[in-house]
Amino acid sequence: MDTLNEKTIHSKTIYEGKIIKVRVDDVTLPNGGTSKREIVDHPGAVAVIALNSEGKLLLVKQFRKPLEKVIYEIPAGKLEPGEDPKQTALRELEEETGYKCKEMSHVVSFYTSPGFANELVHIYFTDSLIEGQKHLDEDEFLENIEVDLEAAVDMIRDQRIFDAKTVYAVQYMQLISS
Amino acid sequence: MDTLNEKTIHSKTIYEGKIIKVRVDDVTLPNGGTSKREIVDHPGAVAVIALNSEGKLLLVKQFRKPLEKVIYEIPAGKLEPGEDPKQTALRELEEETGYKCKEMSHVVSFYTSPGFANELVHIYFTDSLIEGQKHLDEDEFLENIEVDLEAAVDMIRDQRIFDAKTVYAVQYMQLISS
Repeated sequence: MDTLNEKTIHSKTIYEGKIIKVRVDDVTLPNGGTSKREIVDHPGAVAVIALNSEGKLLLVKQFRKPLEKVIYEIPAGKLEPGEDPKQTALRELEEETGYKCKEMSHVVSFYTSPGFANELVHIYFTDSLIEGQKHLDEDEFLENIEVDLEAAVDMIRDQRIFDAKTVYAVQYMQLISS
Repeated sequence: MDTLNEKTIHSKTIYEGKIIKVRVDDVTLPNGGTSKREIVDHPGAVAVIALNSEGKLLLVKQFRKPLEKVIYEIPAGKLEPGEDPKQTALRELEEETGYKCKEMSHVVSFYTSPGFANELVHIYFTDSLIEGQKHLDEDEFLENIEVDLEAAVDMIRDQRIFDAKTVYAVQYMQLISS
């Protein structure tokens, strides 16, 4: 493994924001050369594949400034420092959709963009929803819908579902229903 | 749709790198309030789900500085300005694995991290590989392996496969073999 590793010679902080930090690292390459790596530090996130009693997928519709677009995503949110990802998932599910759940299981965790960012997303699954209390952050505006598999596949086709975790979630629905 | 939109009041460029640009936008919220959005501009990328004549998935093993880890990913690369994504996919497949292909089809495109970045990844599929010429960038070091579905699932479990596009690719293999 070691033969592919890069060593940090110097790290320069570019920006420390509320959510992301940006740095440029000078590295030594495996062949002894050097290069620069532009890196975004991110606290990580969770997302929940939640199916209601009819087997429909819960989606939240929201404006995403980086895309300048409204898209539909599975409920998700950033990790708070020291918070267990499953607790974050339970919290975000209730805050964004108004549902709690009886049981929630971990499906997979993945880095979203390993080339430039260390954001790790933990994906959970539940199909045991019960009523809870919706509560949004003060700068958060979203609407909820629930869609069956066929509708979700159509939404990928016409780019209303358009992000990694939600495309993964729809494929997950396809797999468990196949 | 418009009711969820945020309008840009002011945009401040924080960093213009070789790959990413970082800016902070002040926005007007749907309720008339204001907030800041930290945004990473990225040129977009492609990735290829490539199966060899035995149905094994092509993976590249490489060190990812943001993760400080070696992971296994499907072949991928950034879009060059003005380049058609399919051409990028054909080029990156050959450069990183030494394979060309007879046919390549588009599977899906998704934003990796819509909360803070506009990186869009286009995923392609091929199972008609033919011999080509491997050629890496001067700061690129990687090794190739080819794995069957069972091995790929194991690699997700022990976090050697650990990024969105490759986890998606393995799920895609599961679907087409189910």
